[in-house]
Amino acid sequence: MHPQLHFLTLSTPDLDAARRFYRDGLGWTPTVDVPGEVLFFQVAPGLLLGLFESRSFDRDLGGPDTTGAETTGPDTAGTAAAARTGGVSGVTLAHNVDSREAVDRTVADLVAAGATVHTPPQDGAFGGIYHAHVADPNGVLWEIAHNPTWHVAADGTVQLS
Amino acid sequence: MHPQLHFLTLSTPDLDAARRFYRDGLGWTPTVDVPGEVLFFQVAPGLLLGLFESRSFDRDLGGPDTTGAETTGPDTAGTAAAARTGGVSGVTLAHNVDSREAVDRTVADLVAAGATVHTPPQDGAFGGIYHAHVADPNGVLWEIAHNPTWHVAADGTVQLS
Repeated sequence: MHPQLHFLTLSTPDLDAARRFYRDGLGWTPTVDVPGEVLFFQVAPGLLLGLFESRSFDRDLGGPDTTGAETTGPDTAGTAAAARTGGVSGVTLAHNVDSREAVDRTVADLVAAGATVHTPPQDGAFGGIYHAHVADPNGVLWEIAHNPTWHVAADGTVQLS
Repeated sequence: MHPQLHFLTLSTPDLDAARRFYRDGLGWTPTVDVPGEVLFFQVAPGLLLGLFESRSFDRDLGGPDTTGAETTGPDTAGTAAAARTGGVSGVTLAHNVDSREAVDRTVADLVAAGATVHTPPQDGAFGGIYHAHVADPNGVLWEIAHNPTWHVAADGTVQLS
């Protein structure tokens, strides 16, 4: 796995407050702005900061364990919460690769290096994305994704189309 | 404030496990490796991922409120914890500027945009750094710093010297 971060995603309880602060207050131009869902800003060459409305963030991490946690009570919820945190919560680091096969292969490499699978490779909810989430030994979540709509121009500008 | 992330710092309870995973398991080369303290990897042009041993992470955020919290009981500790979190904990996003005056000015700009000050501009513990921490409306912590040892080469390589 190449040492490259492509998305930094934070769980954001109040996305409207975030928009007022970053767009209106600081004058930053969003790359993507979907009210009630997500707000993206480019914050380094090839890197987007994603502010995800908290329910969308949780849904994006919602594998079978998390879904089960919502209906089967506090013990299971506690397990799911522990699985997705550690020293860090509400954050995912994303690494993009160029095919679905590369997602599978990269997840296998990460597991071989000591990571644990949080959600196995699967189709995402939108955009034709295919992705998995794995936790590093401290619980830091990495999303490994193939996203056919994501491109980086020669000057480092991220394009989602 | 220019939309640029320079450091992404995560609180890491087990730094040795992180080293085994990223350096030994994935083969990434650390930019900086101080056992028991911090581990840096470059993960985008101009951007370092910092894994901070959790006590160092907490100390780095330790303004008067947090220090007080350690000695004056759970109510104050709760206030400090709430001040430094929101939907996100154990994470800071850092933005570097080129002078101490620019730290003061940028913090003022952020406050004008709706941020709250977590730790006011002050000298850091090492490296000649001068920095402040402010929280965005969702509790996401930004460190605004002047760090005379930090440089980015023309090819995007980060140098700390």
